[in-house]
Amino acid sequence: MKIPYCIQLFIIISIAVFIYVYSRNQHLNFGCRKTNLRSRSTIDTPVHNSDHHFTDTPLHPLDPLTIPEINKIRSILSAYEPFSSSFPSINTLSLDEPDKCQVLAWKPGDPLPPRRASVISFLDGQTHLLTVDLDLAVVTGDVVNVGSGYPMLTTEDLTTALEVLLTNLDFNKSILARGVDFNDLVCIPPSSGWFGPDEDGKRIVKVQCFSSQNTPNYYMRPIEGLRVTVDVDKREIVKITDTGRDIPIPEGTNTDYRYTTRSPFSDMTPETNPMSMEQPKGPSFTVENGHTVKWANWVFHIKPDIRAGIIISQAMIRAENGEYRSVMYKGFASELYVPYMDPDQGWYYKSYMDAGEFGLGATAMPLVELNDCPRYSYYMDGVFASADGRPFIQPNIICIFERFTGDIGWRHSEIPAMGFDIRESRPKTTLVARMVASVGNYDYIFDWEFQTDGLIRIKVGLSGMLMVKATPYENIYNISNTDDMSGPLVSENVIGVVHDHFISFHLDMDIDGPNNSFAEVNLVKEETRPGQSPRKSYLKAIRKVAKTEDDAKIKLKLYDPSEFHVFNPAKRSRLGNPTGYKIVPGGTAASLLDLDDPPQIRAAFSNNQIWVTPHNKSEEWAGGLLVSQSKGDDTLAVWSARNREIENKDIVLWYTLGFHHIPCQEDFPVMPTVSSSFELKPVNFFDRNPILNAKPIFQKDLPVCSATSSY
Amino acid sequence: MKIPYCIQLFIIISIAVFIYVYSRNQHLNFGCRKTNLRSRSTIDTPVHNSDHHFTDTPLHPLDPLTIPEINKIRSILSAYEPFSSSFPSINTLSLDEPDKCQVLAWKPGDPLPPRRASVISFLDGQTHLLTVDLDLAVVTGDVVNVGSGYPMLTTEDLTTALEVLLTNLDFNKSILARGVDFNDLVCIPPSSGWFGPDEDGKRIVKVQCFSSQNTPNYYMRPIEGLRVTVDVDKREIVKITDTGRDIPIPEGTNTDYRYTTRSPFSDMTPETNPMSMEQPKGPSFTVENGHTVKWANWVFHIKPDIRAGIIISQAMIRAENGEYRSVMYKGFASELYVPYMDPDQGWYYKSYMDAGEFGLGATAMPLVELNDCPRYSYYMDGVFASADGRPFIQPNIICIFERFTGDIGWRHSEIPAMGFDIRESRPKTTLVARMVASVGNYDYIFDWEFQTDGLIRIKVGLSGMLMVKATPYENIYNISNTDDMSGPLVSENVIGVVHDHFISFHLDMDIDGPNNSFAEVNLVKEETRPGQSPRKSYLKAIRKVAKTEDDAKIKLKLYDPSEFHVFNPAKRSRLGNPTGYKIVPGGTAASLLDLDDPPQIRAAFSNNQIWVTPHNKSEEWAGGLLVSQSKGDDTLAVWSARNREIENKDIVLWYTLGFHHIPCQEDFPVMPTVSSSFELKPVNFFDRNPILNAKPIFQKDLPVCSATSSY
Repeated sequence: MKIPYCIQLFIIISIAVFIYVYSRNQHLNFGCRKTNLRSRSTIDTPVHNSDHHFTDTPLHPLDPLTIPEINKIRSILSAYEPFSSSFPSINTLSLDEPDKCQVLAWKPGDPLPPRRASVISFLDGQTHLLTVDLDLAVVTGDVVNVGSGYPMLTTEDLTTALEVLLTNLDFNKSILARGVDFNDLVCIPPSSGWFGPDEDGKRIVKVQCFSSQNTPNYYMRPIEGLRVTVDVDKREIVKITDTGRDIPIPEGTNTDYRYTTRSPFSDMTPETNPMSMEQPKGPSFTVENGHTVKWANWVFHIKPDIRAGIIISQAMIRAENGEYRSVMYKGFASELYVPYMDPDQGWYYKSYMDAGEFGLGATAMPLVELNDCPRYSYYMDGVFASADGRPFIQPNIICIFERFTGDIGWRHSEIPAMGFDIRESRPKTTLVARMVASVGNYDYIFDWEFQTDGLIRIKVGLSGMLMVKATPYENIYNISNTDDMSGPLVSENVIGVVHDHFISFHLDMDIDGPNNSFAEVNLVKEETRPGQSPRKSYLKAIRKVAKTEDDAKIKLKLYDPSEFHVFNPAKRSRLGNPTGYKIVPGGTAASLLDLDDPPQIRAAFSNNQIWVTPHNKSEEWAGGLLVSQSKGDDTLAVWSARNREIENKDIVLWYTLGFHHIPCQEDFPVMPTVSSSFELKPVNFFDRNPILNAKPIFQKDLPVCSATSSY
Repeated sequence: MKIPYCIQLFIIISIAVFIYVYSRNQHLNFGCRKTNLRSRSTIDTPVHNSDHHFTDTPLHPLDPLTIPEINKIRSILSAYEPFSSSFPSINTLSLDEPDKCQVLAWKPGDPLPPRRASVISFLDGQTHLLTVDLDLAVVTGDVVNVGSGYPMLTTEDLTTALEVLLTNLDFNKSILARGVDFNDLVCIPPSSGWFGPDEDGKRIVKVQCFSSQNTPNYYMRPIEGLRVTVDVDKREIVKITDTGRDIPIPEGTNTDYRYTTRSPFSDMTPETNPMSMEQPKGPSFTVENGHTVKWANWVFHIKPDIRAGIIISQAMIRAENGEYRSVMYKGFASELYVPYMDPDQGWYYKSYMDAGEFGLGATAMPLVELNDCPRYSYYMDGVFASADGRPFIQPNIICIFERFTGDIGWRHSEIPAMGFDIRESRPKTTLVARMVASVGNYDYIFDWEFQTDGLIRIKVGLSGMLMVKATPYENIYNISNTDDMSGPLVSENVIGVVHDHFISFHLDMDIDGPNNSFAEVNLVKEETRPGQSPRKSYLKAIRKVAKTEDDAKIKLKLYDPSEFHVFNPAKRSRLGNPTGYKIVPGGTAASLLDLDDPPQIRAAFSNNQIWVTPHNKSEEWAGGLLVSQSKGDDTLAVWSARNREIENKDIVLWYTLGFHHIPCQEDFPVMPTVSSSFELKPVNFFDRNPILNAKPIFQKDLPVCSATSSY
């Protein structure tokens, strides 16, 4: 070793190493740079609505904490006796939402219910679950976690890990042996999962490194076989292995995906003329008081959340009498589980829990105007707290836009013969709220789409980069043993490792009020009785109301199909049908891992596609509140094992949307978006088709447009 | 009976009865009105491209028969000896496509392969399957069908049935007993299915009637319990039953869905401002020679077909070297099976086969501009033959448009920290070809959507009217026996009968050439070996190539998942992966009926979701060529029972998309569109992401628009 460690450290920390903090970016981004509020001029997409964050005032019981509130909380915590000698690291700091009954009782003009914050902080090896009362200006709750799991790692933890790493002779030897210039070294700290008692009682980071030589797409250039586990509290290496020196680092050729660098590169990539959804009379939605969206017959509250990304609350739709009727009290992505399918030492632990370990809001970058979201989008900023407890703004992380796709709301044609020459068709216009979480390599596009017919579609799109594995094989002809391959070759020396994605949605449905029931409407084949009919068989819908949680643990079956209704047993349609909504799964995938495999224990919410639980404020995160290194003792499966009563109760519906991903060459070096969705759909909620009277589009409604270039 | 039959007949046939011919509309519409070519002035949507149909010349081997060609065929048939005394009824008359090798060998500028027509005609109780050679001007083939099944019914058959009906005392009594004014009587001839030997050897119609009093939406006003089976050849009633005189005809209140009549009616139906997909530089696609669509990197042939609706042929996508590579030789909807789930006498037989019994092109009405299809759509006409062999034009039945929905083609964000401040996103633009078949009550929206990344999405949307059953029950409180109910109450006295829809797509994939193989890539759970890994389990992709048809009869399983690839074993990617496409199912449903139930025997294609067969020109219609009253002796299941070899052969992929439909009040009186889709997606077909170099949208690309009203 010729290079003194101190020089390496200098090079690495101050100039060269791009430490990708894999979600806790606001720490690096703002905390480390000693700026708490990011300058607006660094954002190249226009900011539509965030000029007043410095003096924001909450106007609705569910409004997120404001900058003044976060500052006040920091003051309260600073004065809190246990933290007087040392301020803890703040892992999450967000609104402690008032009890549901308080929120439901609140009306515009009323004073807000008491504002409280939930703070998860870490100090001296202990996780504090704090409640801070903003009105009383005191810490009203401080529970030290005794269960498993840690809060998310902070920048300090990660800096520590890298310092430890870089003072390690073996690590330096490995990097030099690969011929990687330290200027090109990029290291990331994937979460370590939990795999039995070996790593218990330690907060650990498992560092993985890449070369960014000749490409910003370092994900495609892994330094394979080098894995280091660091204990960030003891500041020591727990384990270092390097089994990959004979595995080449894949070339960076053709992996750069930036438009500015690719534009001179000419190939057959198709071009189409630009298009734009134009609205001559302007968009039809408004955003009131910062977070209340009104559009067509819908009104709902929306906010960015550091962990869940988008939270939709109090979604209500207008009835024929003009009153708004409750559909959903709260809906959000609760956890996102991504198990990779490679049992090797360097890979087995990759079973990410992206919401709880990294945060879907924390990893949401500013959206790219016109490309991530169409023209006329409304952009919303995230106001979050940094690891030091100071507020910061993540601009433009949600966009809201109206959509017209050329799809049809309803239609019918009759034959233009005597009497009924009818051709009626109504266009479909929807409202979309979107956020994209860039959780390291992957980009998750979350869409909440509202239709005037009452339908809500929740769609998840996957793009970004594969998590790839380097291999000596350049092509499939020189593969000696396909058992080595945990996925297909997607480029020379690059394996696209097979993996799954499971996104669990917490859907606190309140159909016409909090107390609802869950019914499975099973389609059952009946045989006709002898002589009854020339038909031998037919289907009958058998409705069964779930009494307890066990009745509502659903695995979808193509050959034993059901509809799944959440309904209000106290509210009937004009005809006496219970008013309800059904959840309509689309394409999905199930987890096939052993139920006692550690990742599956922690992500046991993916054991079923549907669960129903009684509303419980402490049961929001399907993989647990403290997910890092958790043992799965605080999951949806654990809560629901109590088999509580769920009939005519305030219930929460959980749906897990799944994807299996066997990569292919088209996914290299950046993946075309793959998406899937599910729907919440009214079923006897309305007395008739609610868009029966919708207007057609007429020629006179359309704009007169010309190309900008002609101006 | 006070009214003489002759007067009734006059009233009914000349003025009052709207005979909905349930698909054979062109017969009624044109044949009966003694006009073979519809005047352009009767169409209120603009016609963009059909001025020259009178002199159309085929320019591509797959171009549909032209008006001059249809006229010539009629002359040839008129001179054909067996038809010299009596011209047969023409059931279908369409291009007999040249052999695939001839089509593949043909290049623009070459003379066309010989033009031939396939004609199905009916005369004196016999079905003739004729081949007509246009160049030789002779009938070169005349096979009289000896299997089961008849061609579609003609107008004459239906007129016969109604005449027979109206001379029947019991029928007249029933109508009078219901108090229905003959002016309001609407009768339709649903297909009768096949239910054993009782009805063998007869061509029968099962007539069902409605009242259109106070509403054009007569479908919501069934005259329940009155069913008449007519032998159209013997001109006699086979069976008449009326068990429903105590069942009221549901009221027409609030069933009219026409904008012009509803606009004075005020309710809370939401309004949104109009939107339009604007293209300042114009659409990016062209339609050459009437049927060849070129867009972005795609080129394909498209034509309307009387039976299949849209046929897409020779879909090819441009490779990096600029050459077009074959993806699909031919894709179309082959059959559409709709079994209703009511074993009662009046309902058991309802198990429609809409493509073969009614025709998806035959029931396609002119699209409603701006509402069925967005601005800047290109409209294509259907040129078909009437029952008398004369040509007619069905205008604007296909539209083609470019689509921008605000969705994202691919994207990735990095943290804007040192080195990699990257936020790249590419908009998604697609091309859609659409047709809507109004098969009686239901409207089926067929979309073929092409993406620049090589993906083809095939989507089916369902709208229109429910097929409902009248009941004495006004609301659910007075239902004495739910066993009577074959579906939920959707309005007073109206049951929405539970039913399914299964659409089978014929997908003749030619990945880089005709000879392809089919592989199931099964994701299998593997257990780790003791000591191998802290993980207990992982998934492994096991690829198995199908040798014979039995290997490719696939029932989808959520807990035993696979990818399904069609690939070219002779063509490899840069890395040696076989070049292929996979079929990606979305939300779907399976048929649960007994395999030996008559409707299921006839629609046995729905026994599996996926089948693969060797290409065979005579195996195009999954439910058989002659579907009316067929016994299921000519179905995909029968052909495929031979278990032929399919490895490295010219193979056809079949996919059946399914829907279960348990109606609800929102479906009354016209259904908001429900849709589902599946995808054909490249898998190692391209050497990398084919849209890596796609351009972002820039502000300068967008149009400057103003509302028309300001002009």
